[in-house]
This record gives sequence, structure tokens and C-alpha cells, in this order.
Amino acid sequence: MSTLTFEDRYPCILETASSVGKKEGEGNLGQYFDNIYQDAYLGEKSWEKAESRLVKNTLQTLLDKTKLKPSDIDVVFGGDLLNQCIGSNYGLLDFNIPFFGLYGACSTFVEGLILASITVNGGHAKKAVAITSSHFCSSERQFRFPLEYGGQRTPTAQWTVTGSGAALVSTGGDIRITHATVGKIVDYGIKDVNNMGAAMAPAAIDTIVRHFKDRNLSSDYFDLVVTGDLGMVGRQIVEEQLFGYGIDVKDRYLDCGEQIFDGKRQDTHAGGSGCGCCASVFSGWLYKLLQNKKYKRILLTATGALMNPTTCFQGENIPGIAHAVAIERTDA
Amino acid sequence: MSTLTFEDRYPCILETASSVGKKEGEGNLGQYFDNIYQDAYLGEKSWEKAESRLVKNTLQTLLDKTKLKPSDIDVVFGGDLLNQCIGSNYGLLDFNIPFFGLYGACSTFVEGLILASITVNGGHAKKAVAITSSHFCSSERQFRFPLEYGGQRTPTAQWTVTGSGAALVSTGGDIRITHATVGKIVDYGIKDVNNMGAAMAPAAIDTIVRHFKDRNLSSDYFDLVVTGDLGMVGRQIVEEQLFGYGIDVKDRYLDCGEQIFDGKRQDTHAGGSGCGCCASVFSGWLYKLLQNKKYKRILLTATGALMNPTTCFQGENIPGIAHAVAIERTDA
Repeated sequence: MSTLTFEDRYPCILETASSVGKKEGEGNLGQYFDNIYQDAYLGEKSWEKAESRLVKNTLQTLLDKTKLKPSDIDVVFGGDLLNQCIGSNYGLLDFNIPFFGLYGACSTFVEGLILASITVNGGHAKKAVAITSSHFCSSERQFRFPLEYGGQRTPTAQWTVTGSGAALVSTGGDIRITHATVGKIVDYGIKDVNNMGAAMAPAAIDTIVRHFKDRNLSSDYFDLVVTGDLGMVGRQIVEEQLFGYGIDVKDRYLDCGEQIFDGKRQDTHAGGSGCGCCASVFSGWLYKLLQNKKYKRILLTATGALMNPTTCFQGENIPGIAHAVAIERTDA
Repeated sequence: MSTLTFEDRYPCILETASSVGKKEGEGNLGQYFDNIYQDAYLGEKSWEKAESRLVKNTLQTLLDKTKLKPSDIDVVFGGDLLNQCIGSNYGLLDFNIPFFGLYGACSTFVEGLILASITVNGGHAKKAVAITSSHFCSSERQFRFPLEYGGQRTPTAQWTVTGSGAALVSTGGDIRITHATVGKIVDYGIKDVNNMGAAMAPAAIDTIVRHFKDRNLSSDYFDLVVTGDLGMVGRQIVEEQLFGYGIDVKDRYLDCGEQIFDGKRQDTHAGGSGCGCCASVFSGWLYKLLQNKKYKRILLTATGALMNPTTCFQGENIPGIAHAVAIERTDA
């Protein structure tokens, strides 16, 4: 499968919504998010329920901003990092909208955008939503250590973003999803669960190189090449390796995980991560840069690490996957 | 979103492949599966790796039966029950095929068939594969008790199928996916983790009723109405409730979870379950009944329970979801 091209019935992103936690609100992009929650529990009794509440509130915000009812949405594509994707399942329950559950680790937001685009492009849905979430506290409990343990973090470790982002995909807008490159599972033998950036970088490189090659693009085609949550370590690998493939995007490449926090001030080490990182940074910030025409063409590449604690204990490698969409203003 | 109709570029199921474990091989449908493994480890060192091996071997069998290479497949839609879907991720790694990871619990096989159909119908893929798996031992460890504990099972408990099924979706065949109904998350307040059939039944009813209503079908339209893995308890609820909705399919309704094992002889209580149940029963048995024209129209409805052990400990309800595809011979 080469890079997909969407013609005729162009899928567009008509609106986005974003929600984040206190730390993200105090980060570099705090002014751009729709909802900032000071309480990590969002008024719920567990962190898992808090994450579901984050999903619920983000979709509700998207409906409010677009003056739509749940029944106006044909289908939702959603997922998160929690076991059996319970963040999305419980968060979306009350809306009663047809639902496709996805798991692509932190690549899920763009996976959802691609599948929403295919579905809208094919005329099977008029309005589709892609939504993902992550929560620092529920992720730490599930993937690493109980917060109460107070474990030390390595310099390459990333900080899971408490956040959620949602995008409404339909036809008839100016901000179009013109192309998509579907990720392959890529394994370069990384085993360090505290170095996700290095584990996911090869997948990002594979997908971005395929996107440029399939479309025969020059390095300066996009105003911005974005990766989801490689953080500082993975970002550097990708930048250097792309240059080796003849794609020189040093002056126009950024990573959502590196952008969301002020690493020095906020002690977030290699940067942000999680399904909610790319989703909230795109939905909160990057989409506005497309709206106000600061940028006209963005390649959004979300990256995921495909492991769980059991496989890490069993000594398995951590493969990665990356999905990419070209989002372009066509009124430029 | 009403029930989807696939026109023009009809998605068809050109071939299927199935693999199961020893117990499934000794069950009612043993003669129909492509691969039966006597060793629960499939020669691997852990049950998780065994499940990945099951996925890998099933996809390889599908390629062998169709004389295709991995590079001939445009995209794979896959998922399983393990945390972060590692069964599929590690199982599909070596094939290097673009991949969409899904999580719909035991509804994932039909979720994959629907998304493969949308993608093929839209011309974005020529050949797509839907594949899912489950493994009794990896599931018990993750969701219930360590096998070594030797816990008692309740009468309503189901037995997770060790199995995997894969279907090749493309154009140009006689066995077509003509319509699809996308599931909604449905919660009827069931909290008993040992009664998944009751938890999933309301979702199955919602989806099947919508399918019949949207298409304005009479009760005898399908030769067979199939649910994925409700087992004996859930099957009975669905049969009775559908009758209440004016859909009388008593003489043509079966459940894959009830079919795969001989409950009395094999002590499987309410029947089989798991992502691999519906997938292996359809791919191994039902597809052959369509091929030899014993049946011409089947409604395949896979059902999933959306929970994890943490949410059960936290006292949450267990919502369900069900996706359905109409598979019809159009040369009839």
C-alpha cells in the first residue's frame, strides 16, 4: 500500500477540541487548550475514571464548538493507552454514537484521522470524529510504578501527557487531509522501557520517508513536519536520519512531546508522551496555526511503542509504529 | 450512521484461514480448521509468544492458500485481547505490511471486516486482511487467575478459545460483504465478570435490530444469524429479545461460542469466548458453508465486553459492543 490520496470527496478537519491537566496548562502551549483541569481526578474517584471524563469532556467541547448533537456524528474512532482501551470505552459510552475502537499506542490519534478520512471519503459517514486520550497518573500506575513509590526517572524517560484531543472530519472545509501513509510495525531491537523515543524513531523515519518518496516531494514541501511524542531523544534521531535519506527538514521539524512542556522548568526529562500528547497539541495548537494561515501544509506523524509491561519483563523488544497524514490548506 | 451499504466496488471474502488449540480441535468443529496445535506453547517460551505465533501462522496459512506474498497485501486490520494488543503486534511484525491496530474486545474480527470493506470499497486497498486471536492461557493469566491456582469456574463462565482466524477482503468474488452495522457502546449495568454473555447480549440485540430495521428485512432474510461468543446464557437472551422486536430467528440463529465446544463432554460451561472464537469459527467453518452454497446469506455479529480487571475491581459496569456484517452470495 503506497501513500493514500484522497480525491473528489475531500476529508477536511472542520473543528478540533482539546483538554489537558494542570502541568500541561502551565507548559509552553497552555494558552491554546480549550479546557485545563487543575484537579488530576477531574472530580472522579479514580484516575481511570478521570481519563474517561477527559475523553467525555473533550468530545462534548467539540460538540459545543460546532453546535452539533451526538446524533449528528456518524461514527467515532477512538483509543487510549489503558488496558482494553477503557479510557475511550467509558468516556464515549453516554454519547450513543457508532464506535470503532483502535489501538496504536501513541500513534492512535493519526490512525483515527486516517480511518475517519477513508470513511468520509468513501461516503460512508458525513461526520466522523477521531479522539484519543492519556493520563499521567493512570499510565504510571499501569505501565511503570505506583506514584506513591516515588521512583526516580531516567534522563531519557518521558512524561505522559494528561490530555485529550478530538477532531471533526467531514467534507466542505479548507483544511484538508490530502494524503495518508499507514504505518508498518518496525523493530530495531530497543528494549529500554525508559527510552521510548529511540524505540519509536525508526517507525517515524520509515513512514516519513515513504510519504516523501511516494509523493515525490522535496524537503521544503511542508511548512512543518511534526512527530507525535518522540521527545528530545527520538526527535534528534529522526532529524539526523531523515537528512541521511535526503530529507532535510531541520528548519521545519518539531515534535509534540518536546513542545508541550518546558523541560527545564517542568522537569519532564525527554519530553511529553502518550495518546493525548499529539492529540492535544494538534487539536489545541497546530490546528489554530492552520486556521490562521501561519502554516499551510503540515505532515502530522504520530508514533506508538507497541509493548506492555509483561513483554518487557519477558525481555522482548519494543517495536514501534507511525501513521502520517498530510494536512493542507487548499485555498492557499 | 445507518447500516452501511457497499455498492460498485463490492468487498468480497476471497479466502480464510484458521488455527486453533488442542481443545478446540477436539470440539464440534475440529475437522474444519486449517491448523490444530497440540502444544499450548506452540514451541514458544511464553503463552503471550504462543498467541503471537498463532497470529503469525494463521496469516502465513492465508498467504499459502492464496499463493500471495506479504507484499501483495495492502493492509492488515488486527487485534486481540491482550494488554496493548501485543498478540497482534508481535505476530504481525515480520510481515512488514501496513497495519491498523484495533480494539473491540471479542467484536474485533467483524470490526476488522468492516474497516477492510470500507477501505477496499473506497479503492484505497486492493487486498486487505482482517485477523484476530485469543489464547486460553494468556487470557486467564491476564483477566482472571493464574492457571496454577486452579480456580473454580461459575456455570455462566466462558472458556476463552485458543484460536485465530483471518479473512482476505478484496474485490471480484462471489462471497460479498454487502452491508455493515457499526456497533454502539451499550451498558445494561452488568457487573459480573463471569457472565460476559449477559453483558454483551444487549449490544448484540441493538446492532441486529438496527441491521434488520435499516434494511427493512423480514425475519427469514438470512439463512443464518450468527453471534460471536455470547455462549449459552447470552444466546438465549438475544433469541428471546429479538423475538420481542419482531425478529423471529429461532430456527436460524447460532452462536460461535456455543458451537465450537461440546459443552457437556468438554466442561466448558457456558461456551467459548475470545477474539479467536468468532474469527476461527467463521474462517474455519461458516465460510466453507458459504463456499459450498449450503448457506447464501449470513449475518455475522461479533460481540465484545469492554472492561479490564481494574475497572471490575473498581466496581464499574461492563458495557458491550457488537459489530455486524451481512455476508451474501450474490451468484445465488
